Amino acid sequence: MEKTKKQGGKNRECGFEENSEERDSGNIIEGRHGVTEAFRSGRTIDKLYILEGCQDGPILTIKREAKKQDTIIKYVTKERLGQLSETGKHQGVVAVAAAYTYATVEEILDRARQRQEQPFILLLDGIEDPHNLGAIIRTANLAGAHGVIIPKNRAVGLTAAVARASAGAVNYTPVAKVTNLSKTIEDLKKEGMWFVCADMGGTSMYKLDLKGPMGLVVGSEGQGVSRLVREKCDMTAAIPMRGDIDSLNASVAAGILAYEIVRQRLG
Amino acid sequence: MEKTKKQGGKNRECGFEENSEERDSGNIIEGRHGVTEAFRSGRTIDKLYILEGCQDGPILTIKREAKKQDTIIKYVTKERLGQLSETGKHQGVVAVAAAYTYATVEEILDRARQRQEQPFILLLDGIEDPHNLGAIIRTANLAGAHGVIIPKNRAVGLTAAVARASAGAVNYTPVAKVTNLSKTIEDLKKEGMWFVCADMGGTSMYKLDLKGPMGLVVGSEGQGVSRLVREKCDMTAAIPMRGDIDSLNASVAAGILAYEIVRQRLG
Repeated sequence: MEKTKKQGGKNRECGFEENSEERDSGNIIEGRHGVTEAFRSGRTIDKLYILEGCQDGPILTIKREAKKQDTIIKYVTKERLGQLSETGKHQGVVAVAAAYTYATVEEILDRARQRQEQPFILLLDGIEDPHNLGAIIRTANLAGAHGVIIPKNRAVGLTAAVARASAGAVNYTPVAKVTNLSKTIEDLKKEGMWFVCADMGGTSMYKLDLKGPMGLVVGSEGQGVSRLVREKCDMTAAIPMRGDIDSLNASVAAGILAYEIVRQRLG
Repeated sequence: MEKTKKQGGKNRECGFEENSEERDSGNIIEGRHGVTEAFRSGRTIDKLYILEGCQDGPILTIKREAKKQDTIIKYVTKERLGQLSETGKHQGVVAVAAAYTYATVEEILDRARQRQEQPFILLLDGIEDPHNLGAIIRTANLAGAHGVIIPKNRAVGLTAAVARASAGAVNYTPVAKVTNLSKTIEDLKKEGMWFVCADMGGTSMYKLDLKGPMGLVVGSEGQGVSRLVREKCDMTAAIPMRGDIDSLNASVAAGILAYEIVRQRLG
């Protein structure tokens, strides 16, 4: 653990915060045979790490399987692979499998239909901290949201650490992973949904009408919601703030906004 | 780190969750001379660990200093001391110093007076997770609360991990540490404050009048607010929940309740 923590931190090549708990997930698959089998067995692979410059037959096979699943591939140095590897026998390839099964966006909408409720979905743009993702899935469950949508890239997936932090909510609340969050929002708008984006510069959430079929989009603490995603939203909601620091913890902000939607729906 | 994590967990003797990040705080003081000096220099010691059965002169001196400061003393086994020790030279005594200075309850009330506002204070009963305490101090800052009150025992103090999780809010929002939370609530009621306790079995927070000088009492995830503290409160507030799991993350729950107070104060 210590090694990973020290050597983790900002990965400059990829420009995102490496999740130091990835190794803690119990879902690291190493070596060419293991990784190929994992793909072929239909297991959901969140991320695939391949040694830079590695181009032989078995690696090309793995890349083909990854493309079928639309898995994110990252080309990394030998040192980085060594850090990710648990056995040291990675043969140039390490896959991180999801600890839980992802749902589809359609399944989330079905859930709303079954309950005869207006859809209420949380969309997370770039949440990288497993504690935050877990806490948000937990909030989604208790706020009565029908599901959570996360992007494939630049975000933590359903690792064991996330499942733990969700206090079991991953077993009840469907989480879908999509390639392009903006595109998903566009599609859902065609289904009649409205989207509200968390943004410090937005309108006070208490002044917005948040009833109806609603998607709540929350960004990461550092970056907020990305411009492309924000531009797809129908409105931006701000949590009134009067303190000295910049922002709330991402899971706390998501909880406050989700419950403003709950309050308006109840009222 | 790994060693602490594995051997941490539930400490059955003391009946509380050991904070595995305590060692990470950079505020471990070891050995008889070091600990005595730390007390005499006026440094705030959050917890003092003494080897069971250790009764010689220097230890008695340390215990006297600890009593002056009203520091919690825990008598532990050699193995436990060994885990807490960073140098291995603890000589039967290890102190955990606060990374930040505590305020007094009076200072928190002064802050409300200076701003000519009704006091708004968060009281935390037994929050043991540093991420949660940090996130709650952050919320207190941005919700415009005048301070946070935590108990001396069965709770994490202002460690470096808490300061990090607070995103700097510990530098702005005063945190007071008290020996007896029930007694503090009693005293503050005499000053005209009202207390609302977070409790799943309470009245929906949307139906309560949370204006006026208000103390919000939030408990730990596992235990909730303890009975003695709950009985001192004027009302109990529930966050409406409609999911499958038991409870929200403690810092998310605190955020949702704090912002219901903000909403009512704004409205």
